[in-house]
Amino acid sequence: MPTDSYPFITPDALLAHWQGHRRLTRRVIHAFPDDKLFTFSVGGMRPFGVLALEMITMGVPMVRGAISNEWHAPADRSPRPKHGLLELWDEHTEQLNTLWPQIPVTRFREHLTAFGQFPGVLHDLILYVIDNEIHHRGQGYVYLRALGIEPPAFYDRS
Amino acid sequence: MPTDSYPFITPDALLAHWQGHRRLTRRVIHAFPDDKLFTFSVGGMRPFGVLALEMITMGVPMVRGAISNEWHAPADRSPRPKHGLLELWDEHTEQLNTLWPQIPVTRFREHLTAFGQFPGVLHDLILYVIDNEIHHRGQGYVYLRALGIEPPAFYDRS
Repeated sequence: MPTDSYPFITPDALLAHWQGHRRLTRRVIHAFPDDKLFTFSVGGMRPFGVLALEMITMGVPMVRGAISNEWHAPADRSPRPKHGLLELWDEHTEQLNTLWPQIPVTRFREHLTAFGQFPGVLHDLILYVIDNEIHHRGQGYVYLRALGIEPPAFYDRS
Repeated sequence: MPTDSYPFITPDALLAHWQGHRRLTRRVIHAFPDDKLFTFSVGGMRPFGVLALEMITMGVPMVRGAISNEWHAPADRSPRPKHGLLELWDEHTEQLNTLWPQIPVTRFREHLTAFGQFPGVLHDLILYVIDNEIHHRGQGYVYLRALGIEPPAFYDRS
């Protein structure tokens, strides 16, 4: 195998890594008081509930598009009770596990245009979705601290 | 090649992805006023200059350890002028480019114990370093917004 074909990480290991992040993000959603999830923020930014719904509109829709080349992202980011948001999160966790193995292994290095407007190599597009989750979750940590709430440990992905 | 040996992403592409993040983090450091970099934060958290120095203690030292199995991380996170922090950042950017190709391609899937205390597969340990940078940079975005400063665009990695 030529050196430039060796994996830094395989698709299976990347999914496990991503799901570890999703478990942590779920704990951050859970840490917010219900009445702060869609109302509180710092510096005029979006509340964490809206950011979590953005993550939901990106993850499964990206993977579904990578498989089918059909691009649909739900647009509804309206406030909802925390238990409803957590149920939606858990549904997407399961869908991700089901869909991920359907991506052909050669697809990750192909160029495509996600959602009709974001061109890139699939591995970069998927990392963008994960990185966006980490980025906004980090902002959620600041919101929690500003509310006087201890956020979950960053290193714990169990 | 068996399916489980295909890359999600290759080492070369992962380095390019990481350096894109590092360019963005550099712009976030640059966006802070010099007198706020080591003094301002939200919710009792660490100032962004301290977080940037944490990133510096993790990136190159992780890669150097992956090559040599010798683990040294600089401990000094004392305040310094912004231009000095940016110079240090740029030195590490160059060191990363030099060191990265010295990691044997088979090493990324090996178990090791980083810094004598963090066990894991090397690809997960390296992703942890990158994810930690994204996580804390996202917090820097909130600090900037709280200061009334528009942060750099998250999607721009040029």
